Parts: sequence; structure tokens; C-alpha cells
Amino acid sequence: MATLGDIAVAAGLNILSAVIFFVAFAILRLQPFNDRVYFPKWYLKGLRTDPVHGGGAFVRKFVNLDWRAYLKFLNWMPAAIRMPEPELIDHAGLDSVVYLRIYLIGLKIFVPIAFLAWAVLVPVNWTSTGLEAGGNNITSSDIDKLSISNIHRGSERFWGHIVMAYAFTFWTCYVLLKEYEKVAAMRLQFLAAEKRRPDQFTVLVKNIPPDPDESTSELVEHFFLVNHPDNYLTHQVVYNANKLAKLVKKKKKLQNWLVYYQNKLERTSKRPEMRTGFLGCCGNKVDAIDYHNTEIDKLSKEIALERDKVTNDPKSVMPAAFVSFKSRWGAAVCAQTQQTRNPTIWLTEWAPEPRDVYWSNLAIPYVSLTVRRLIMGVAFFFLTFFFMIPIAIVQTLASIEGIEKAAPWLKPLISVPFIKSFIQGFLPGIALKLFLIFLPTILMIMSKFEGFGSISSLERRSASRYYIFNFVNLFLGNILTGTAFQQLDTFIHQPANKYPIIIGTAIPLKASFFITYIMVDGWAGIAGEVLMLKPLIIYHLKNFFLVKTEKDREEAMDPGSIGFNTGEPRIQLYFLLGLVYAAVTPTVLPFIIIFFALAYVVFRHQIINVYNQEYESGAAFWPDVHFRIVVALVVSQIVLMGLLTTKEAASSTPFLIALPILTIWFHRYCRGRFEPAFVKYPLQEAMMKDTLERATEPNLNLKPYLQNAYVHPVFKESLEEDDDVEVMSEKWEADSVTVPTKRQSRRNTPLPSRISGASSPIQNLEP
Amino acid sequence: MATLGDIAVAAGLNILSAVIFFVAFAILRLQPFNDRVYFPKWYLKGLRTDPVHGGGAFVRKFVNLDWRAYLKFLNWMPAAIRMPEPELIDHAGLDSVVYLRIYLIGLKIFVPIAFLAWAVLVPVNWTSTGLEAGGNNITSSDIDKLSISNIHRGSERFWGHIVMAYAFTFWTCYVLLKEYEKVAAMRLQFLAAEKRRPDQFTVLVKNIPPDPDESTSELVEHFFLVNHPDNYLTHQVVYNANKLAKLVKKKKKLQNWLVYYQNKLERTSKRPEMRTGFLGCCGNKVDAIDYHNTEIDKLSKEIALERDKVTNDPKSVMPAAFVSFKSRWGAAVCAQTQQTRNPTIWLTEWAPEPRDVYWSNLAIPYVSLTVRRLIMGVAFFFLTFFFMIPIAIVQTLASIEGIEKAAPWLKPLISVPFIKSFIQGFLPGIALKLFLIFLPTILMIMSKFEGFGSISSLERRSASRYYIFNFVNLFLGNILTGTAFQQLDTFIHQPANKYPIIIGTAIPLKASFFITYIMVDGWAGIAGEVLMLKPLIIYHLKNFFLVKTEKDREEAMDPGSIGFNTGEPRIQLYFLLGLVYAAVTPTVLPFIIIFFALAYVVFRHQIINVYNQEYESGAAFWPDVHFRIVVALVVSQIVLMGLLTTKEAASSTPFLIALPILTIWFHRYCRGRFEPAFVKYPLQEAMMKDTLERATEPNLNLKPYLQNAYVHPVFKESLEEDDDVEVMSEKWEADSVTVPTKRQSRRNTPLPSRISGASSPIQNLEP
Repeated sequence: MATLGDIAVAAGLNILSAVIFFVAFAILRLQPFNDRVYFPKWYLKGLRTDPVHGGGAFVRKFVNLDWRAYLKFLNWMPAAIRMPEPELIDHAGLDSVVYLRIYLIGLKIFVPIAFLAWAVLVPVNWTSTGLEAGGNNITSSDIDKLSISNIHRGSERFWGHIVMAYAFTFWTCYVLLKEYEKVAAMRLQFLAAEKRRPDQFTVLVKNIPPDPDESTSELVEHFFLVNHPDNYLTHQVVYNANKLAKLVKKKKKLQNWLVYYQNKLERTSKRPEMRTGFLGCCGNKVDAIDYHNTEIDKLSKEIALERDKVTNDPKSVMPAAFVSFKSRWGAAVCAQTQQTRNPTIWLTEWAPEPRDVYWSNLAIPYVSLTVRRLIMGVAFFFLTFFFMIPIAIVQTLASIEGIEKAAPWLKPLISVPFIKSFIQGFLPGIALKLFLIFLPTILMIMSKFEGFGSISSLERRSASRYYIFNFVNLFLGNILTGTAFQQLDTFIHQPANKYPIIIGTAIPLKASFFITYIMVDGWAGIAGEVLMLKPLIIYHLKNFFLVKTEKDREEAMDPGSIGFNTGEPRIQLYFLLGLVYAAVTPTVLPFIIIFFALAYVVFRHQIINVYNQEYESGAAFWPDVHFRIVVALVVSQIVLMGLLTTKEAASSTPFLIALPILTIWFHRYCRGRFEPAFVKYPLQEAMMKDTLERATEPNLNLKPYLQNAYVHPVFKESLEEDDDVEVMSEKWEADSVTVPTKRQSRRNTPLPSRISGASSPIQNLEP
Repeated sequence: MATLGDIAVAAGLNILSAVIFFVAFAILRLQPFNDRVYFPKWYLKGLRTDPVHGGGAFVRKFVNLDWRAYLKFLNWMPAAIRMPEPELIDHAGLDSVVYLRIYLIGLKIFVPIAFLAWAVLVPVNWTSTGLEAGGNNITSSDIDKLSISNIHRGSERFWGHIVMAYAFTFWTCYVLLKEYEKVAAMRLQFLAAEKRRPDQFTVLVKNIPPDPDESTSELVEHFFLVNHPDNYLTHQVVYNANKLAKLVKKKKKLQNWLVYYQNKLERTSKRPEMRTGFLGCCGNKVDAIDYHNTEIDKLSKEIALERDKVTNDPKSVMPAAFVSFKSRWGAAVCAQTQQTRNPTIWLTEWAPEPRDVYWSNLAIPYVSLTVRRLIMGVAFFFLTFFFMIPIAIVQTLASIEGIEKAAPWLKPLISVPFIKSFIQGFLPGIALKLFLIFLPTILMIMSKFEGFGSISSLERRSASRYYIFNFVNLFLGNILTGTAFQQLDTFIHQPANKYPIIIGTAIPLKASFFITYIMVDGWAGIAGEVLMLKPLIIYHLKNFFLVKTEKDREEAMDPGSIGFNTGEPRIQLYFLLGLVYAAVTPTVLPFIIIFFALAYVVFRHQIINVYNQEYESGAAFWPDVHFRIVVALVVSQIVLMGLLTTKEAASSTPFLIALPILTIWFHRYCRGRFEPAFVKYPLQEAMMKDTLERATEPNLNLKPYLQNAYVHPVFKESLEEDDDVEVMSEKWEADSVTVPTKRQSRRNTPLPSRISGASSPIQNLEP
């Protein structure tokens, strides 16, 4: 059990590391040569150009010598907060803005709860003497004196906790309800916004049945001409361009190496040589530049051939198509209705944004999909509960004895004390750490295998799996002892009514552990996020070795994105901890509030200046977020019930039973009331928009606008590469590849944001 | 434990009573004066007229004197089976036909399973010596020798049971899959059938928001003219006619009494008198006929007033409407899409058939609906688990001591030995029996309170609740001891992995009890069904006291209907028993097969000759039926796992774990594959039908056809009563009130069914 002193030391350390990160960030971001790492978003939007290539003294291009800039090193924080929400939606898209609202909800929920808990529960707990009187052999800490542990068994004071549990639940539900309302309204407004987007008119049709007489394209056209005669406009079939995409990727890699060797040649004036064999280690020595040139030529021909094959061979047409309609109303109707008797063919759904399409999954038939889900369900179960088994094996192998057994000839080496201590202290931990680092990737691969058709749904699926993994292995795993599998075994052998008791008993004991966890992961971790160490290093490496032209530099930037699949489950853990500990150990709450506040500012800054969202789903993830907070709420209620049972508060505990029932009912109500806004598109909205458009642009011809909206990115790229860019394709890109902005015209002379005014990050650079 | 002898005696008794029922039925149904009780369906369809009023000898009109008719007293059975399915759909509707298929599925599943079980498991069990060797103190019966109880602990023979469990599961799933396919196809074909029906064009719109400027009718018209401009045709608002309906019902009752007194006057030639007070027991004596005449006059005026009020007062218009479209396509689109941003207003769904509408529930707002569901959910939980408490109280009160305490002045009366033994032996049981008789009604009232808008959905909901009640109180309640609440308590205090063990251990011991149950409820009960004792008595009472005209006699008939809400859960219990005992005690299977075969024949006969379905939902209940059979399958697998665990078959039991997972996956697959056919209406079908209709009837004017399709029945009735029948209303009635038939023209001279030929029930009567 940690005392207050221990916590204070941990807090000091973590605050110190957070401050170090922030100072490092403040210094690094002001250096012009880091500009593309810390403000890539503005470069991508064309609103900022390289200071490196501007005028002025040479040194000034790389190092910021203005001392005044360093004084206000936390200036970016208010700047990040100042940009108003509507402008932020314009700037970064709805997904990012709604993602930020999750942190805001955290504050909205926990600030009042913390006040209430500290005003009511802390005095109630503090003035009790349960720990002294109990005489139990667990050494109690100061934190425990503030927690529910300090109340006597069977005391009437538990009524206070029960009333507070009701208050917390009602407040949380109230905030959730208001927020769901708000987000749903934002989504609908976003979808109905003035701008025309191809996905408003387009429906993705999957599982088109094969037809012996007609090509897929003809079949689609006929089917929709017959069944949606007044609305059908055009369609695009989906090509199986996976092999082509692979070739293009390979060519790009070779081109990168070519540039690298050319740069080398320039610097050293000596023609670089290389070996053609495995990893450049064996094989013949050849001239690197010539070799790459011929390889690229070969590949280019191959690509041209493959592209011809894909576009002309009917076999490379996948049984899926993007069908566009004359009006939003027509598309809304088609997306929401069933087309044929057999509900597994001619499946229609809203087309995701062109950027959001996950192309290689569009052709999976229905039966295969259900089988894949089953397999992945079983696999995920084993991953969650048994992942420790392979890691334990690796750890055994990676121990001194394991290595000695497996490879006796290494014995002299590992007898060296330094290597020995390294293996003993580091290797076992590394196996677990590596697994945890790769876990999101593993989950993402699993989601891809399951066959979701858009990147946003892949990320949502991965997020929910990651959440379950965290819940089992991080939350339960730290509360109870042993591996997840051992816990599973324990739980199976316990009566159902014992579960809450087991967890409830352990909860107050783990408060100090979780406080430390929050500080490490939530404070220092978030502060580290803003520093962006990995992109910083990679950018400079690329810049040094590969960059020749302005376009190369553009490509060397790695703005990254929010990463919903890892970020959201992480936030949810804080909701869970906050709600569980609110009535048990209110000491935890301030730490969580600091996390939410800090994370809100940091991520707002990152979204404004760094992240470049890969897609725009219109906050389609909100029902998931809502659901998980409700789950956290129900868990907290059940845990409290278990805890009070062990405290023998027999007369008061039954009053808690109504809480989970009411909460679950609240969730069902919200789902019925708001979820349709996230899966359907109301006809009234569509009709209003159509009518307006018809009135303002009576002669609009949609067909060319939609004709090439959904082209496989590999075609787009190769079109561009070959300087064969069609007018339409470019028009479409301008419309939808980057998130559109009103500021497109202000190239090179960025004006300050209306409100963020003088301290905008751009202004900071031009003192 | 019952021995084979006991079972044989019980079987003999039940077979005897079944035979008695059948003989009684055979005799009664041949008497012309019972004709309207046993063949009401044909009267309702106008295909049969009263033999009583035909020519011939007087006696012959009432009693069938032809001795040959009595010889073939089981003739109705082959006759019932002979009518082919398509003709039966025409005759009785799809609901009835698909309902019969449930029994057929029972045969399809259990006949092969029984063969397999008797060929493999019975020898395996019989040749083992577990019961003798076990030396346990439970007296084993002959049935147990055939069951799994006879296998040694930890024996390798359990592999046989596991392989069989797999075989049973795969066979059941195969049958279910085929059947789901078939029923979905039948439903779609039925919906797409040639006949035009108002519900194909109509959508029910609920939760229309109030508007200060427009009436509901105008609002609906404007909304749909704007949002479905090409498809909207007309609409009908829903009037709140609940009070009017009550008045009309009251008037009808008074008219019945009037007829009764008039008949009495005719017979006795003395003007009947009555008292006006409570139940005719007190108050002034008046002339009954005059009194009723004036009362009816008064009511008629009141009804006219109320009808005026309902039709003219805007406040009596409910926020719901039936909106009709120009084409099936338009209606299909509107029913499947969301109309406005707020998903709780302007809710659209397929209109139920006019007969199927449950009018008084059409006006419930969304929030109220969710609250009602919550309340009913909690209420149902208490009903299921705590219903024994009030009954126990009544039973205590109804005991000798209870009565003596509550009413000491009754003491002399209850000391009489006869009354005493009556109270002791009968009263306590009666409380439970009465509760069980009223249970379906209670569940129906609960469903009505929940706010479902059609009779079919009310019945489906009641059925699922009744199933759960039966599962808990009949199945689990008889396997375990104690009340449902005590079991709940036991279960909560047991580890989760003990549940299957508790049930599994008890299962083989209860085989003989369930065999007896099947014979009483399934054999004798079904045989009693065909006799229709209650309608028989009521018809003759009514006939004697009330019937004067042909129309009265028509109304005195009470054909009844299938009663999905009680019938289906009852069948499901047999599925559950069959699947659970298939691998454990195969002896049960033949009894279940006999039940299914008998019930199939009896209900087929009843559907052909008696039942008059109140509505037609197009087999919308099938997903429920499928789901419950899958539940029974999973329960059977879990029970087997528990049983094998207690048998220490440790090496083989884990092989069963895959079964429930696969079964649940199978269910999910089926749901995705087939359920849309039951909730959506494919656009292709609609379009095909529309195109066909446009080609065959290019000048069709739908508006008058749909204008009055959805009139509250009370308006229809009063229209008819006042001889104010509009042409349209009558046309509509002919189209949809009775299930339409091709035979409409054959009045009075029924031809034999194409296939059922000479032995048709009509022919039997005209020897």
C-alpha cells in the first residue's frame, strides 16, 4: 500500500517528466527546420511554406534565435483552445472535433462528481474509524483513510455512498444524453452541409450475383434502371487491383532507393555500388543507380501491363460497384432498402467517403463473411485470455537457463556479467512489451480479415476489441492477481453473485496503483505525445537521405492521425477508473480530471497543427463511445454492490439494484432515440438539400462529377504519375482528397484565425 | 421412479381417453345440429348452408341416422391431410399453413433422430451395467436401463453420446435451415401474390408531431407531398374511437338481451319483467322489453352524437395515419426509410392488414413506449419468479385454518366433513389452476400495455413471454425442486459452471415424469382439442336463447383461431424435451413423435374446418419459432455437457464445447440470411408487381380502392347497421375481411376439393 508520500514522489516525478517534454517541445517546435514535423497540417492545406527556403540569414532558416519566442513556451495551449468549434470542423473535419468532445465529456462528468465526492464522501470517510477499529493486518495508508475502506462494517454511513452512487449515475446519464443529442445534431448538420460530396449521392452495392449473359457493369446498370428507374444515374465497378497496388508500391520503394543513391553520388562523387542478393548481403556487385534504373523500367512496363489487364479482363471486376443517383433522396432510399428477395445479394449501404474505402475487402461473399466473423471471434477469445502462454514460453526461452539449453555454444558469451544482467533484466519484459506494442496492429489485421469495407469501420472494430482486451487484462488483470486465464478459471468456479464481491473487495486496495498508472500513462504519456519523437527522427532521416525536391519533402512528412483504434479505448479506461472509484476512493478523481484537461489541450493542438485525418466518417463512432461509457457506469454500480455486500451493509445494498436496470434502460432509450442518425439518412434532409440545389443550380450536370469519384487509388496515382491526369480526376481531388477548407485562396499569406488571433502558431513563427 | 409397467398403465389410460374423445367427436360432428360448431369455417366462407333448414324429414335435420357414416369414424384424419398446401393457403391463409409446418418440423427432426438414437444409443446404454455396478441407493427403473444413467462413470462409451450429439445438432440445424428457406420463400411468394391488398400500398405513420397551424390530416398530406412527391397518393387519419367502440359494444349487449326477452315472450306469452338495479337483483321492476327498447334508443342517440364528435372534433384525431402510395415500390421505400432527423417522430412501418390493426395502441408516444417496456420487463420478471407468493397466500387463506381465522362465523359450516374435504383437497389447487388458466390473458394484457400496434405482434410478444414462463416454471421447475424463486436463489449462489451440472444430473431422473406429462398434455389434450366442448356448449346455449334470424346464428358461431400466443410455446416445450432427452433418454422420443403426428392431423383438420384466423401476418412469427428451437438445441447441449461432467467423462466432454458455439453461429447466419424477408419488403419484388399491374390494368384508379381501407371497425359496423353502407366499404370487405377464396361462386353447391375428393368433410354429410 502506497502512502501519501509515495504518491507525492510519483506525482513529482511524472510532473517533472511532463514539464521536460513540454519544454523540449516548446524549444523544438520553434526551430524552423522542425516546422514540417510540428505543423504538417498547415503544409498539407497549402497554408504554410518552408521557412527554410525563404529569405533571410542562413542560420535563421534552421534555428530560431528570437529569445522572446522561448519565454512564452506554453503559449500553444491557449492557442489550441481558442479556435472555435465550427472553424475546427472546417479545418479538421467532424471526426476530429467529436473525438475531442470525448475528453470534454470526461471533464463534464468528472468535475462535478469530484466536487460532490470531496464535499460529501471524503468527510464521511475521513471521520470514520473503520481502519483503526478493524485491526486488520493490512497496513492502511493515508489514502485509505479517505476511502470507503475506513467505514465500519454495517455502518449507516453507507447510505451516503448509495445516495452518491445515484447522483453520479444520474449526472453521468444526463451528460451522456445531452452529448448524444449534440453529436447527432452535429452529424446531421455536417451531412447536410452546403458542400456537395460524392458519397451523398452514392451507394455501395456488394455481393452482386454472377450472371452468365452480362458483364457486372451491364448487370448493375440494368438492375438499377429497372428497380430505381427515376433515380439511377451512373455507376462504377470495382476492380481487383490488389496486385497492381503491390507493384506500384514496389516501384515507389525502388525510386526511393534510386534517389538515395543519386544523393550519395552527389555528395561523394563516387558511383555507389550494391549487391543484388538477399538484403544486399550477397550476390554480384553492380552499379546501384544503373541497377535501380533498369529495375524501375522493368517494373513500369509490368505495371502498364497489369493495369491493362485489370481494366480489360472481366475477371478482374469484383462483384461490387458504386452506384450513383440523380438525387440525395434516391441514394438515401437505395441505401436503406432491401433490393431483392435474397438478402445476401445486391446488398446496399451508404458508400463511405472515397478516402475511407478499404478496397481489398469489397468482394467477400456473405457466407464467407459470417465464417470469418466466427473464426475471428474464437481467435479473439484466445488472444484475450491466453496471450500470456506464448509470451511465457518466450520468456522461458529468453532466460539464462533457456538460452544455455537451446544454444550451449552461446554459454561463454552469456557468462559475461553485463550481458547476463541485460538478459535477465530486460529480455523477458521485452517479449511482453513487444506484444503490447504490436497488439493494435494484430487487432487491425483481425478486423481486416473479418471483411469490413471501410477504414473507419475497421478502426471502430479494432477499438472495441482493444477495449475488451484492456478491460480484461489491464483493469481486471491488475485488480485480481494471476493471468487472465487463471482469472477466467477462478470466475467459472465461483458463484455468479460472488463476482462483484471479488472485484469489489479488491477495488479500494488498488487505488494507489491506478493513481500511479494514471500519472505515468495519462500525464507523462500525453505530454510525450506532443513531442512526436518518432516522426521527428524519421523526418530528419528522410530529409537527409531522400529529399531532393519540394514534393519529396512533402512526402517525408508523417502527420499521422488520431488513431481511433488505440486512442479511444485508452480514454475509455479513464472513464472506467473514474466511475468505479468515484464512490469508493474519491482521491482518484483529481488525477483523472488532470488527465482529461491535459489530453484535451494536447490533442486539440495536435488536431489543429499536426494530424491529417485519413478519412471522414461523420462521427460514426459515437454510438460506440456512448455504449462503452454506459458499460463503465454499470460496472461501477455492480462493483459498488459487491463492495457493500462485503461491508455487511445489508439494509442499504438492495437499493442499488435499481441502478443498473435504469442505466441499461437509459442506454436502450438513447439507442432508439439517436442511433438511427448514425446509420440512416433521413429522407426529409435529403429532399430539402435536393430541392435547394435544384433551385440554386438548375442546370447542374452531376454525371461528370460522379463519374470518377470512386476510382481505386492505384489508378489515380498511376494516372497522375503518367501525367495523364484527367480534368475530372483533378476536380474530384480538390473536392474531396484533402478536407476542404474555405481558406484555399490564402496560400502563403495566412491570416490569423478569426478568434485565435495573435497567438496563432503561424504568427508565432513570424515575430 | 416409474417402472415400465407404470408408464404402460399411464399410456393405456391416456390412449383410452384420447380414443373416447375421438369417438365422441366422430359422433357429434355427424349430427346436423352441430354442424355450425364443427364446420364454421365453411359457413363463414359461404360454402355451406344449414342442413337444419334444408328439405327432408324433421328428425334428419338434427340427428344423422345413416349408420354407415359412423363406421368410418376416423375418416376425417386422411381427409384433413389430403388438402394440398397451396389450396390450404388459399383456404386459411399463410399463417395457418406455416403454423402447421411447426408440427411437421417436429416430425422431420425427431423421426430420424429417434431412429438413430434407438439404433445406436439404446444398445450402448442397455448393454452397460452402470446401474447394477453403481450400487447407488436410488431404485432404478427399466427406463433408466435404456438411458445414459446405465453407463459406468468415466466410461469410453460416452464417445457414442458425443458423436450422437453432433449428429443430432447437425440434423436439426439442417432441417431448420431448409425450413427457414422454405418459409421465407412462401412468405415472399404470398406477399407478391396476384391479389391486390390495401396493406401492400400502405404505410402506418406513427408519432406525427403536433403542429399549431395545420390539422393532422393537412400536416400528413403536406409532409408526404414534399418528401415523397412522386409516390404519395392518399392517407387516412386514425380517430380515437375507443369510447365509441365501448358504446357500440354496450348497445350490442342490450340488443342481445332484447332478443332474449322477446324469445321468452314468444314462448311463454307473458311479458317478461326485470329489475333495473345491480345485476338485476334490486331496483324497480319494469317491463324488460320496453326497458331495453328505450335504453337502446338512448344509446343509439348517444352513439350518433359520439360519432359526430369523433369525426368532427380535431382533438379526437390521433397522431397516427395510414398513408397510401401510388405503387408498392413507393410504400416499400417509405416503410423502410427514416423520414426526419428525429427518429422518434414520423415513424413509418408497413401497415398491418386492416383486420390486424390494434387501434387503441396507435397513439402512444416514443418515450412512453420505452418506459412501458421497462415497467413490463420488471413486472414480467416478478411474475415469472415470484408468482408463487400470492398463490401461496391464497392457498393459506383457503385452508381450513385460514378460513377459521378470517371468518370464525363460518366454522360450523366447514366442520361438515364433505365441505371440509372439498376445501382441503380442491381449493388450494384451484388457485394455481385459475392462475395458469388466466396466465395467457395476463400476458396479453401486458403486451397490450407495452403498446404494440397490431394483433399479430401482440400475440408474438405474449408467446415469447409464455415460452419463458414455461421454460422456467414447467421445465426447470419440474427438473429442480422448489419454486422458481428458490431456484433463482440456488443458481445465484452456485458457480456458473455448476448450472449445467445441476440440471444435467436431474435430467435423466425426470424422464418418466415428462413421459407422463407428454401423454396427458400432448395426447389426451390434443384429442380434447378436436372435440371443442366449450364452443359446442356455448353455441347451443346461444342457439336456444338468442338466435332468431340466420344472421344471429352466424354470430352465435365461435370458430376461434389458432391462438399463437398459447399454442406455439406449448409446441416449443416438446422441442425442448425432445432435444434434451434425445441423447440422454431416447425412450422419450417416440412419445414426442406421436404428439407431433397427432397434433399435426388434429390442427390441420381444425384449420380446414373450424378456425377462422383473425388476421394474416404472412408468417411473420417464423423468426421467433426458429430462434426458440435453436435455444432448445443449445440448452440440450449444455445439459449434456453438465451430465457428462458428473459422469467423469473428462476426456470426451471438452469435445462438446464447440457445439453451442457452432449452433449460435448458425443462428446468426440464418438471421442475417433470412430474417430480412420477414421485416423488409424487397424493392425488386415491389417493382415487378407494379410493372405487371401497370401492364395489365393501365387505367386502374387506386385512390377509391385505398380511400377507406383503414377505417376503424366501429365506423364500419355502424355504417352497416344504419344501412349506410358505402360501395367502397363493401368492396373492401369482400376483398379483405374474410380470407379471399377462389370458390366464392360455388355457394350452396360445394364441389369436392380437387384432391381431397370423395372424403371431403362436406361430402361426408351428404351420403
